[in-house]
Amino acid sequence: MIYLDNAATTIDKDESVAKAVYNAIYSRNFANPSRGAYIQSLNSLKLLMETRKNVGRLFGMDNPLNVVLTSNVTFGLNFVIKSLFSKYDHIITSISEHNSVLRPLYDLEEDGISISYIGLDNFSLRLSEIENNIRDNSKALILTGASNISGMVTDIDKAYDICKKNNLILIIDGAQLAGYVDFDISKYDNTIFLFTGHKGLHAPQGTGGFVVNGDFDFKQVFSGGSGFNSFSKKQPQSLPDLFEPGTENVHSFAGLNQAVKLSLKNPHYRELDELTRYLSDGLRNIDNLIFYKDFSKKSVPIISFNIKNLSANYVAMKLWDDYSICTRAGSHCAPLFHKNYKTEKQGIVRLSLSYYNTKDEIKKALSAIEKIKKNS
Amino acid sequence: MIYLDNAATTIDKDESVAKAVYNAIYSRNFANPSRGAYIQSLNSLKLLMETRKNVGRLFGMDNPLNVVLTSNVTFGLNFVIKSLFSKYDHIITSISEHNSVLRPLYDLEEDGISISYIGLDNFSLRLSEIENNIRDNSKALILTGASNISGMVTDIDKAYDICKKNNLILIIDGAQLAGYVDFDISKYDNTIFLFTGHKGLHAPQGTGGFVVNGDFDFKQVFSGGSGFNSFSKKQPQSLPDLFEPGTENVHSFAGLNQAVKLSLKNPHYRELDELTRYLSDGLRNIDNLIFYKDFSKKSVPIISFNIKNLSANYVAMKLWDDYSICTRAGSHCAPLFHKNYKTEKQGIVRLSLSYYNTKDEIKKALSAIEKIKKNS
Repeated sequence: MIYLDNAATTIDKDESVAKAVYNAIYSRNFANPSRGAYIQSLNSLKLLMETRKNVGRLFGMDNPLNVVLTSNVTFGLNFVIKSLFSKYDHIITSISEHNSVLRPLYDLEEDGISISYIGLDNFSLRLSEIENNIRDNSKALILTGASNISGMVTDIDKAYDICKKNNLILIIDGAQLAGYVDFDISKYDNTIFLFTGHKGLHAPQGTGGFVVNGDFDFKQVFSGGSGFNSFSKKQPQSLPDLFEPGTENVHSFAGLNQAVKLSLKNPHYRELDELTRYLSDGLRNIDNLIFYKDFSKKSVPIISFNIKNLSANYVAMKLWDDYSICTRAGSHCAPLFHKNYKTEKQGIVRLSLSYYNTKDEIKKALSAIEKIKKNS
Repeated sequence: MIYLDNAATTIDKDESVAKAVYNAIYSRNFANPSRGAYIQSLNSLKLLMETRKNVGRLFGMDNPLNVVLTSNVTFGLNFVIKSLFSKYDHIITSISEHNSVLRPLYDLEEDGISISYIGLDNFSLRLSEIENNIRDNSKALILTGASNISGMVTDIDKAYDICKKNNLILIIDGAQLAGYVDFDISKYDNTIFLFTGHKGLHAPQGTGGFVVNGDFDFKQVFSGGSGFNSFSKKQPQSLPDLFEPGTENVHSFAGLNQAVKLSLKNPHYRELDELTRYLSDGLRNIDNLIFYKDFSKKSVPIISFNIKNLSANYVAMKLWDDYSICTRAGSHCAPLFHKNYKTEKQGIVRLSLSYYNTKDEIKKALSAIEKIKKNS
């Protein structure tokens, strides 16, 4: 089996990550972090704080209290989007976004919030459109850090400059960025960066969160037990408690902590660059492929294509059935991207790498695609 | 170390539970469940469905699609409470509730929803008060299945009869019930039962959910990727997808599935009854203890007490410092219970058992409490 669906989730995790979770579940050392007087409860509280510290270190945030842990990036995005905005606010986003950004925004639209979308230029976000879209009531710019179809990386410096100048909050969906491209939030004030554990960070599912740089007027979204201030009718309003009601998933965060520590030690960027170049060179040598990428610009290791007008589902099915290669076809939860390129029906085949992949696997994938193309 | 804080979280999990999670993370067999064409994606989808089936089996629900998996009971409660009600609705609940019920309800109050509370008679819910509180706009009765302080089990049959007669939705917070008392939702239509994995079910943290019996007009609360219907602006409106946006935590649910299978095989009720009786008999033989429990009625293995007017935090600290016994003092996130019994300042010491506890541990705990009392 050759696994090329790393943008959906990575199935290769370091054994120490799985062991950290196993140990947290089975060692009797990690109880409920919610302020028990005994060491096993404090161990859990400490582990959460260590995880926040390491996540902060990875993304440029010194203060661990500015790191909120959630069960995935979708929950982080729902929290942030549903917390920050009020009726009559205006938000700018892009047609490259995942449904985890778009659908929470559509929900806000029903409450009277308005949304503008910037388009794409040769698969890169058309950042020049942002300023034309700014209104008096514009509050935030929400952008993917890297497209989950094209892999194109957003020019965050440029987006930030526009936000700074126009007093907009910058919100970056880093689902496809974390683990692949450095991101340093200390360069960007008034910014929120969201990440997930189970993709490029090779952490367990059920982990993710966001890092904030700046003071935000967050409203309570979910609420529950907080382990302190229990007589208040409100969830504690400070971070991270505001967004972490109930018993935190210490067991899985033990795995995230270990994965982030490994990522801090060795980010594997160079190996991945080489693998990605090998794959893209090989694919571009096959004629009659249509690509959804600008190969001259910075991207994460995602390459999406179609074989002429063949159904993407058919190609992905052939790749699995005849060659045991895992890829992802269809719409990748990014409907506006597909509408833009008129691929709603055909879909797109996506290949996405991790540093666990090998040149040999890529060679086999290239040969399989070549054969499917020839026989079609 | 003697662990008597099982109502906060159980730290004893079967090794097979930890192994199931380890295996899901490390075996390369479980990818993103979101509709990939290859077997590792289908494995994850199947594992989620098997988990729903087993959870359904445990709580009397045949249809696995009526089982929604969430990251804990708090998120389940937020989803249900924030999904079902509209401005001007009226909800009846009790003063025995946890903040995971109360705080989401307080949030609704700000939107114009009104709430009535039934009181306690000798620590049991005063269900006779429900009908006096019903108004034309009453929509639901939300009750704890068992108090997390007194351990008293709610007479759900009786609560259900009142709901049936008055056309109210019954919502049971089963956080302290699951794993300790049988609950069969097939007996109760128009009912929602919520549970958590990491307490009485001895599953990993990060797992929980709810089971529904009936047709409910659920509104979308959170949204994101769904793996199908990606061109719709809305999350799929059917269960369980409506409440499971983004990548599900297959890794942890593998542990929940295993824990629920063990619970189905051997619910350990008898051992626990015996242990609980042993603890309560022993405690009642110590004079000058104040109890927050009616020992003549059905309860889960939770016994809470104070030593005269000694601070509960002091007692719990002594139990830990001098005897390595883990208990939970303070307000247990149930503020109205404490207000009712005027224990806001003193707090209450809670002992809570699991079937991993032994008579010998309880003997030692009794002796420790006896000594602390004598020296105070």
